[in-house]
Amino acid sequence: MGIVTIVGAGMMGSALSVPLRCNGHAVRIVGTPLDGEIIESLQKTSFHPNLKRRLPEGVEYFRCEELGRALEGAELLVGGVSSFGLDWFIRNVVPVIPDGLPVLSVTKGMLDQPDGTMLSYPEVCRAAAERPVCFCAIGGPCTSYELADRDPTEVTFCGWDMEKLRRMKALFETPFYSVSLSADVRGVECAVALKNAYALAVSLAVGLSYAREGREFEHFNSQAALFGQSVREMQGLLALCGGNPSNLYLGVGDLYVTVFGGRTRKIGVLLGRGVPFADAMAQLSGVTLESVVITERTARAVRRLDALGAARLSDYPLLMHVDELITQGKRVNIPWKAFEQENSV
Amino acid sequence: MGIVTIVGAGMMGSALSVPLRCNGHAVRIVGTPLDGEIIESLQKTSFHPNLKRRLPEGVEYFRCEELGRALEGAELLVGGVSSFGLDWFIRNVVPVIPDGLPVLSVTKGMLDQPDGTMLSYPEVCRAAAERPVCFCAIGGPCTSYELADRDPTEVTFCGWDMEKLRRMKALFETPFYSVSLSADVRGVECAVALKNAYALAVSLAVGLSYAREGREFEHFNSQAALFGQSVREMQGLLALCGGNPSNLYLGVGDLYVTVFGGRTRKIGVLLGRGVPFADAMAQLSGVTLESVVITERTARAVRRLDALGAARLSDYPLLMHVDELITQGKRVNIPWKAFEQENSV
Repeated sequence: MGIVTIVGAGMMGSALSVPLRCNGHAVRIVGTPLDGEIIESLQKTSFHPNLKRRLPEGVEYFRCEELGRALEGAELLVGGVSSFGLDWFIRNVVPVIPDGLPVLSVTKGMLDQPDGTMLSYPEVCRAAAERPVCFCAIGGPCTSYELADRDPTEVTFCGWDMEKLRRMKALFETPFYSVSLSADVRGVECAVALKNAYALAVSLAVGLSYAREGREFEHFNSQAALFGQSVREMQGLLALCGGNPSNLYLGVGDLYVTVFGGRTRKIGVLLGRGVPFADAMAQLSGVTLESVVITERTARAVRRLDALGAARLSDYPLLMHVDELITQGKRVNIPWKAFEQENSV
Repeated sequence: MGIVTIVGAGMMGSALSVPLRCNGHAVRIVGTPLDGEIIESLQKTSFHPNLKRRLPEGVEYFRCEELGRALEGAELLVGGVSSFGLDWFIRNVVPVIPDGLPVLSVTKGMLDQPDGTMLSYPEVCRAAAERPVCFCAIGGPCTSYELADRDPTEVTFCGWDMEKLRRMKALFETPFYSVSLSADVRGVECAVALKNAYALAVSLAVGLSYAREGREFEHFNSQAALFGQSVREMQGLLALCGGNPSNLYLGVGDLYVTVFGGRTRKIGVLLGRGVPFADAMAQLSGVTLESVVITERTARAVRRLDALGAARLSDYPLLMHVDELITQGKRVNIPWKAFEQENSV
């Protein structure tokens, strides 16, 4: 049995203790500076106040200051921070990672570069580290509370070292948690990062029908049209990133699960009802939205690539519309006709 | 303004009168031999008993025997039969199509050949016709009642004659009905036919959670895992058919809309709960299920292609499982681990 240290006591990091404990491994969860109350609750009763579930027996909890002790003897470090915690993780955790300890991260996102390149977070971490660290990441459709409830879940671990990935898979694999492995870090991470942007886009349709009919009634033709257009644009973006086209399914599965709830859907529905972005954000006071960040970054990268002649802006009308809702405060006006195509092959 | 004759008074054929009348065209709906009661209701009150909506003013209704009269002066024939009506359509309608009258069909499905080829219905019709007829088809996510309600909808018309397709688009295009055009008949039709098989597959997850928890509670990780696997298998099947990979999005959008309701979901949920196929069909007495037919045909084609060395059965574990539920009466047992992969690129 191994020792796995999870840094970040958020919902996803914490839920990963479930398959690990199921396999009998020692699990240590270390809170970030923002996780003080969560760690306190977990230490007292094992109850996670955000996940609203009790974590498995035997998990040990550590405060941020105890990171060094929590890493002693560990064979894997799980990076459990959200993309808003990535800078903190790079500044405070990466420098103290013991030599040879690999990292598996749940953080989803991409960082656009001035030349239009979209870097995955494992690439960002690798570039930021001052010595070689094996950075890997988890992609694929998985909500934390359903993982905690042992709903059958399929994910993909990606990284550059297949041997290390196989060992990680052995730690996590259970009947309810299935793990594929991929060396296509850019493709896997691009596919799953983009789903946040497009989940917001699909949710616009839900808001549209509220606005039109004055009641909460879901139409699916318009959702499906936006879902299909999202898949088409994600397919194009995956190619722009240099990802393997066969990894599209990871982003699509993740898009499916993200449309059904959470903050991304809430902001999408509000924007779809015609609420301007600033007012919508005020209604969702205090939430941090990865969907907003990834939309802005991806739109910026595509505009840059278009200027360089390496992409066509007109291939991404849905992304561009969501971006103008966010960055220019425009009102929703889905460019349905811009989705139309005429293809002779 | 043109005259469009719709043969088949089912829900989809009838709903297509909405964009056509919106554009001011003359619309004639001709019932099949099974549509007697529907035509009677429509003639009396314009109310469609299955669609549960009144059709637009000005539509004319014809009984099956009046087909010849209904075709006089028409510039387009819409084939509005389901795949179970295709034989009737080929035997009774195709021979009397006036020279030069193009056909646009809503019928979704594929026919497998002894060599493993999967033929689209426009190809089947073309082969069955004794003289040249321009057969085109509609693909993409569109439920009839939402089209009738003017929910924004995106579809693709496919065919071999782009000029004719452009004219058809001009007849139908409205602010709420957007039309793309594609010459990739096999790809478009394959993508949208397969969604029926895979909508049943995704619905299995809904049944699984009922069975496990004894209540109607939807989990999405497992649905998303099956949705993602469906997309992966559809991507492979599209390649086997020789379709353009970029048309995958049509099938995925259509899959999204199909998972949310109707008979395909019902049978999938029952099978997912562990009910054997025969009992599930008995519970849904009398319904005809395109999802069942398309699953059997596609599985047969893939087995044949595998035997010929042109495909690998192991790439389609979800399709094969649904097929064994249907054809061998097995109980649900999702092959989660067969979905796992290890990819070095």
